[in-house]
Amino acid sequence: MSVTAAKGFLAAGIAAGIKENGNPDLSLVVNTGPRRAAAGVFTSNRVKAAPVLWSEQVLKAGQVSAVVLNSGGANACTGPKGFQDTHATAEKAAEVLGLGAAEVAVASTGLIGILLPMDKLLPGIEQAAEALSEHGGEKAAIAIKTTDSVHKTSVVTKDGWTVGGMAKGAGMLAPGLATMLVVLTTDADLDSAALDRALRAATKVTFDRVDSDGCMSTNDTVLLLASGASEVTPEYEEFAAAVRTVCDDLGQQLIRDAEGASKDIKVEVINAASEDDAVEVGRSIARNNLLKCAIHGEDPNWGRVLSAIGTTKAAFDPDQLNVAINGIWVCKNGGVGEDREKVDMRYREVHIVADLAAGTETATIWTNDLTADYVHENSAYSS
Amino acid sequence: MSVTAAKGFLAAGIAAGIKENGNPDLSLVVNTGPRRAAAGVFTSNRVKAAPVLWSEQVLKAGQVSAVVLNSGGANACTGPKGFQDTHATAEKAAEVLGLGAAEVAVASTGLIGILLPMDKLLPGIEQAAEALSEHGGEKAAIAIKTTDSVHKTSVVTKDGWTVGGMAKGAGMLAPGLATMLVVLTTDADLDSAALDRALRAATKVTFDRVDSDGCMSTNDTVLLLASGASEVTPEYEEFAAAVRTVCDDLGQQLIRDAEGASKDIKVEVINAASEDDAVEVGRSIARNNLLKCAIHGEDPNWGRVLSAIGTTKAAFDPDQLNVAINGIWVCKNGGVGEDREKVDMRYREVHIVADLAAGTETATIWTNDLTADYVHENSAYSS
Repeated sequence: MSVTAAKGFLAAGIAAGIKENGNPDLSLVVNTGPRRAAAGVFTSNRVKAAPVLWSEQVLKAGQVSAVVLNSGGANACTGPKGFQDTHATAEKAAEVLGLGAAEVAVASTGLIGILLPMDKLLPGIEQAAEALSEHGGEKAAIAIKTTDSVHKTSVVTKDGWTVGGMAKGAGMLAPGLATMLVVLTTDADLDSAALDRALRAATKVTFDRVDSDGCMSTNDTVLLLASGASEVTPEYEEFAAAVRTVCDDLGQQLIRDAEGASKDIKVEVINAASEDDAVEVGRSIARNNLLKCAIHGEDPNWGRVLSAIGTTKAAFDPDQLNVAINGIWVCKNGGVGEDREKVDMRYREVHIVADLAAGTETATIWTNDLTADYVHENSAYSS
Repeated sequence: MSVTAAKGFLAAGIAAGIKENGNPDLSLVVNTGPRRAAAGVFTSNRVKAAPVLWSEQVLKAGQVSAVVLNSGGANACTGPKGFQDTHATAEKAAEVLGLGAAEVAVASTGLIGILLPMDKLLPGIEQAAEALSEHGGEKAAIAIKTTDSVHKTSVVTKDGWTVGGMAKGAGMLAPGLATMLVVLTTDADLDSAALDRALRAATKVTFDRVDSDGCMSTNDTVLLLASGASEVTPEYEEFAAAVRTVCDDLGQQLIRDAEGASKDIKVEVINAASEDDAVEVGRSIARNNLLKCAIHGEDPNWGRVLSAIGTTKAAFDPDQLNVAINGIWVCKNGGVGEDREKVDMRYREVHIVADLAAGTETATIWTNDLTADYVHENSAYSS
């Protein structure tokens, strides 16, 4: 399903030899129209990889006919040569597919600071173009994996139109753990302005709130392509909801596959004075290494939650804070609440509720625990 | 030496039974004058422990005659009863020592969210008062340890006057790993305004720049007490330099003893447009979990340094950034520099230089690597 669930799209995923182990490493997604509308959201890291700089330019025109994605190399911090390589990648795809290079977006993931093996990548594009298929979505999703243990896809089908997509990584737009690459496709008949609005609204409450380890990639890219092949123009709200559902599903799949994690932690901030406050507090809790270690140890350590809340600028009174862990209000009014022995921490899912008692706004941030496996993966794997 | 190196101070460290394992857990430091000037700097966490709330009030008058410090319990998030307990602690010390409670500062460290065993702590104060000695500094330094593997003391002696001190923890004022408690003493004859100025200037460039794990304690406390017993009033600059030297030395001891660390990392930011920019960039690098894992794995991963710099608001051009690791400029002009194979990562000390090429300001942040031992200590130890 993946990016070929919607009509008007072809995809392929092949092994071009970019990865030394011979695993699939090159994906191609082609919009066969009739429309080629597109929107994109990119990393907010100021150190941006060459493909991000390129694709940001491409997206300004709101039209994308093809996307080339590679794993096995991020093409970040590679200077003018790296940018030339991205340009050559788009040129090659354009040549093979009979398009203009300015309609071809590029996304890369893998090690920073090394040049891509263009002698393998360029022939790989020809090979991928030959393999393009209406059923190529799964293979495309597989070929963008790096440390992912599984490939991630999601599809929502509505009345005559579909939104589908694929994702890799275990992080978020800003910030993220490992690079997140996402391509969404739809056969709904919408212009790039509507796509842009729906995509930004969706990523703000999904990928942006998945915060595995607080680190922001140089390469994060989320694209939404519309073919118009269904000949249906849905109501904006219905379309936006479908995009949000697919983003939410893919975001959840990313967090469940985060590097080395043993717990998936839902941090829900309630009764905040503003949504910004709720997000700030949620992120502070989600990034607290001491708390993440405690959760790994199945210790419902609400003191570390309060300590994390205390570092924010959000409106709250320390003596009014309440914290529940897995349904038990272990902290009430800034002090000891219900018996922490009642908290059942055996399962992978952990739910932390932080009640700021300062308003009515809410936000949820998703994160993971901090484990020895995380340390091992990220001290052994150069990226 | 420690807090009794300077004339006019007595100290003691005893086992009051607050810690279940019977280790020393209560320290008392007494200023015998003739002067009792003092200054203090406290955690910037908005969730403050009872002893911090109490001692902040005491310090407002600029006079401290005694400090009671306990390990084995932070007395944080303990509500009105916790504050009453701190008050009772000061009252008891005042009674035993013939002082007013408003001259007694209190500092605590240990688990958050549990009340202190006052039935053990109050008799412990009597016991500590009986043990007070001009040679009690070492014992006082030992009794404030929690997960510290060694106690930390430092002394600078100048022409007729001395600054000495003790510290526990492995962190900083804001933020920090485990609570940092520091008591500095001097027999220099200075008023509280001079002490305050010298202490704030020193902590800003020492403890504030030790950032082991980005987490901020509810209890961090740094006190500077002056007895005037030397009858020498040094020049302010000379005195401030001595305070800074002692703080720097203690800060280095803290980072070398950080929980579970295998590498001490000096992050030096140079050629920044402002000191604030340099500190922001240094802190961003120091808090990047992916980089800290890479350093643990002895991988000179400059891409993660650039990625961390890119998340800041500091002035820089991505194509002008340079990074050296242990003397090798592995990143030049935002791309590949010297051969990373030349970087020798075998030793505990790691030196990262980030050149922003945007000005002339500089700042150094000290941190540690992220290790499986850190995860183990902090998932097994509730604090």
